[in-house]
Amino acid sequence: MHQIRSFVCSQWTGTDAQTADIVNPSTEEKIGEVLYGNLDTEAALDHARRVGGPALRAMTFAERGQLLLDMSSVIHGAREELFTLAMQNGGNTRKDAKFDVDGAWQTLGYYGNLGLDLGHKRYFVDGEDVALGRNPRLCARHIWTPREGVAAHVNAFNFPAWGFAEKAATTLLAGMPLLVKPATSTCLVAFRIMELLEESGKVPAGAVSMLIGGGRDLGSVLESQDVLAFTGGTSTAQMFRGSASVVKAGARLSVEADSLNAAVAGPDLGDSPDLFNQFVTDVFRDMTQKTGQKCTAIRRIFVPSGLAAEIGEALVEMLETIQTGNPETEGVSMGPVVTRTQLESVEEGIQRLKDGNVELVWRGEAKGDRPGTGGKGFFVEPHLFRGNSSIDPVVHGDEIFGPVSTILPYDGTAEDAIAGLKAGGGSLVASVYSDKRTFVEEVVMGVAPHHGRLYLCSSKVQELGAGPGTVLPMAVHGGPGRAGGGEELGGLRGVKHFMQRTAVQGYR
Amino acid sequence: MHQIRSFVCSQWTGTDAQTADIVNPSTEEKIGEVLYGNLDTEAALDHARRVGGPALRAMTFAERGQLLLDMSSVIHGAREELFTLAMQNGGNTRKDAKFDVDGAWQTLGYYGNLGLDLGHKRYFVDGEDVALGRNPRLCARHIWTPREGVAAHVNAFNFPAWGFAEKAATTLLAGMPLLVKPATSTCLVAFRIMELLEESGKVPAGAVSMLIGGGRDLGSVLESQDVLAFTGGTSTAQMFRGSASVVKAGARLSVEADSLNAAVAGPDLGDSPDLFNQFVTDVFRDMTQKTGQKCTAIRRIFVPSGLAAEIGEALVEMLETIQTGNPETEGVSMGPVVTRTQLESVEEGIQRLKDGNVELVWRGEAKGDRPGTGGKGFFVEPHLFRGNSSIDPVVHGDEIFGPVSTILPYDGTAEDAIAGLKAGGGSLVASVYSDKRTFVEEVVMGVAPHHGRLYLCSSKVQELGAGPGTVLPMAVHGGPGRAGGGEELGGLRGVKHFMQRTAVQGYR
Repeated sequence: MHQIRSFVCSQWTGTDAQTADIVNPSTEEKIGEVLYGNLDTEAALDHARRVGGPALRAMTFAERGQLLLDMSSVIHGAREELFTLAMQNGGNTRKDAKFDVDGAWQTLGYYGNLGLDLGHKRYFVDGEDVALGRNPRLCARHIWTPREGVAAHVNAFNFPAWGFAEKAATTLLAGMPLLVKPATSTCLVAFRIMELLEESGKVPAGAVSMLIGGGRDLGSVLESQDVLAFTGGTSTAQMFRGSASVVKAGARLSVEADSLNAAVAGPDLGDSPDLFNQFVTDVFRDMTQKTGQKCTAIRRIFVPSGLAAEIGEALVEMLETIQTGNPETEGVSMGPVVTRTQLESVEEGIQRLKDGNVELVWRGEAKGDRPGTGGKGFFVEPHLFRGNSSIDPVVHGDEIFGPVSTILPYDGTAEDAIAGLKAGGGSLVASVYSDKRTFVEEVVMGVAPHHGRLYLCSSKVQELGAGPGTVLPMAVHGGPGRAGGGEELGGLRGVKHFMQRTAVQGYR
Repeated sequence: MHQIRSFVCSQWTGTDAQTADIVNPSTEEKIGEVLYGNLDTEAALDHARRVGGPALRAMTFAERGQLLLDMSSVIHGAREELFTLAMQNGGNTRKDAKFDVDGAWQTLGYYGNLGLDLGHKRYFVDGEDVALGRNPRLCARHIWTPREGVAAHVNAFNFPAWGFAEKAATTLLAGMPLLVKPATSTCLVAFRIMELLEESGKVPAGAVSMLIGGGRDLGSVLESQDVLAFTGGTSTAQMFRGSASVVKAGARLSVEADSLNAAVAGPDLGDSPDLFNQFVTDVFRDMTQKTGQKCTAIRRIFVPSGLAAEIGEALVEMLETIQTGNPETEGVSMGPVVTRTQLESVEEGIQRLKDGNVELVWRGEAKGDRPGTGGKGFFVEPHLFRGNSSIDPVVHGDEIFGPVSTILPYDGTAEDAIAGLKAGGGSLVASVYSDKRTFVEEVVMGVAPHHGRLYLCSSKVQELGAGPGTVLPMAVHGGPGRAGGGEELGGLRGVKHFMQRTAVQGYR
């Protein structure tokens, strides 16, 4: 039984005055307990600001980069243990767990090397110096320096390792301390990472703190030099946007919220069997990986009307191979969703589509008794729907955070595809599978303002990509509108969100 | 008598169902009337989105640049007329009016040329392409495309021409239409600019709209692709931050609010008579230009304790030359503030300092009957205070938006200067006057995260600069914390706030 506490003010904290059960979502067995009584968020933030901030700002980018490489090594060294915890607490298959945990140390490693490249400096210059008049002696130079507050990270339940690492990497490299609040339901992996980091002795005091189960007052206690980086649902995002921390104190807010990501099969997909297969494979992966609980997963599948049946059949063929159950049991290819609440939310979403007269193409049936579950667990089988038109509002209204996706036939023109993509109200990612360059270019220019990322798959690169659902540290992650309006990663771009840009006017 | 209406939906609109008087603040005479009955904000926004947006997005950057150059010419061609209106409606001296109006066409011209340089493209690339794996065929490229909404500009009363132009330049170059709401009290200059632009026939339909006297529902009717750019006081800024347009719809918000800008006299200022004079000249200009109604004006004057008396005397000597009155009358060097409300606000601020035991070094007395006013007008003479310490909270608490500033003695160390500057809670600009390089560098690194701009004046450049109070289009303008957290201008940087950055992954 895991005893889980918070690491704040450079010590393990939390009493049993308040507790929360940690459960294996495959078996509903209690496997741990969070003790979160008497946590003091303000003291935790203050410690990070007073102790962690100065320590990090005294380090150069190269030194912070080395810190990230050390953190990457710590996580890499505990991979197998973390995989097991992710399988037990997150309903992850081993592949799902690798996706999360390996993503974590790889992202830290990428930013570690970026820090080494930046070298022994404490600020960096933005663009070229520019003369302010006829005399070139008087110039403006723009510089980026670390904000002097603390970055509060409120993370989603689906990626306890990677979600921690991607925000921590950019924040620490910028020179800001962080206080991370992992989702309580799947906190075991994040908690173990915090333990390992603390035991390693590599992390400066106050630089990384973790609040588990508390922090309900984060909306009221932040200050103007602080940052609040939130990943999660729209209602919580709106609560933070309207909170005193943001509205009154002026803390900087970054949000990654819901997203109805889409994949578009080009009008030429029928001409290229390899690209056709890649399309179906990527959609299948996004529907089932992490049981569909991926912020970048494909929820809307735009296909030319003439190909809709064929694509539907190919997908069903792959979905039929899915064996749900306890991922610790041999042969299981998809685990449960993380909590009963999530299960109910997915079931409600499925019902909403049915009520909206969206045709159910395929509803997976559990293959026998789900192995290793004892008949328990928060399971939902994959569901594939087919809408009537590319802009059917019921499909574009809400994100269903599970193994559920909808085929939406369109007329094969870029115009119709654009209308459908835009109906999502702003997304993290859309992908286009086509070798028809004019079609792809038209779609890109038509939907770029509505997307944080576009993934273009053609015959030339189809075997090289990791699919649209994989977030890479060198490309930005985030999206406008429904997706929250935030931006993360993208190399140095993501680091700057934790810094202040200042124009310095003076002698050359 | 000027009849002032709104230009929305490509026509002049507004009935006498609701009216507001426009007044000459020097004489309190009514000089115009705003007719703002039956204005429909939603229709105005919708027209801009549907008509102006597509027109602008169809243009290349070079074409948008030409549009800005045309707008610049229109304003330049009406300089003298606009100066007169600014003197009559804004209480501007001729110099103040030039500062505003010339700033407007110069900023449009700067961005016009920037557009020509960007050439015949409709998007631009951000940084280098980056390989996504070992095979260089698969790359990520980041692109900027125009947001597909409308930019609502809510402008401050102090710069009806420049405030319009600096936001319009970046918005239009980005490819977004705008709906600007000038402050009603000083709208005459903005209204006349809108008339001139409309008469010129150079502006595409729906690209530039102006709402005068209405728009109280801007906080509830914006959409996620829209931008709300606000310049004004903190309480309105907080209203917009917490508004449905931002919290629920997710419109992007940029705020420039209050700012207690500061100038620091270096410990060596006594060694350099020229630099000493420059310091005093710049502080004097910022206290009295536009009657102190400049968001970048120096409110806090940090001087080494040993120099405080000498600097105070030099400032008083200059302040004694001020002749308040109607700027249309010969010999007047400072006009009134813009409204009775502003006058009361400045008087309250002065009283707050007095109540807080801040010593009044000099309180200007009106020199005789103020010429051309008939004993009327919203006048306040310059006030110079002297605080007891560098971090006296009453001085750092509120911006007094008038000809009022406070000398704050510090001990001559960078550490004490930094503590004082930071006590402002985030500012648009701070300036440092010193030839002591180590001192300047230490202050810059210590306060950069709290400032949008730092102005470093040394003997090498003293005669070249326009002073810290002048906002130039090539350097960013904005500031963290109390200053609102927004950012404008800075060349292409300011254009991007009206665009979306998207990572495009695909074939090289």
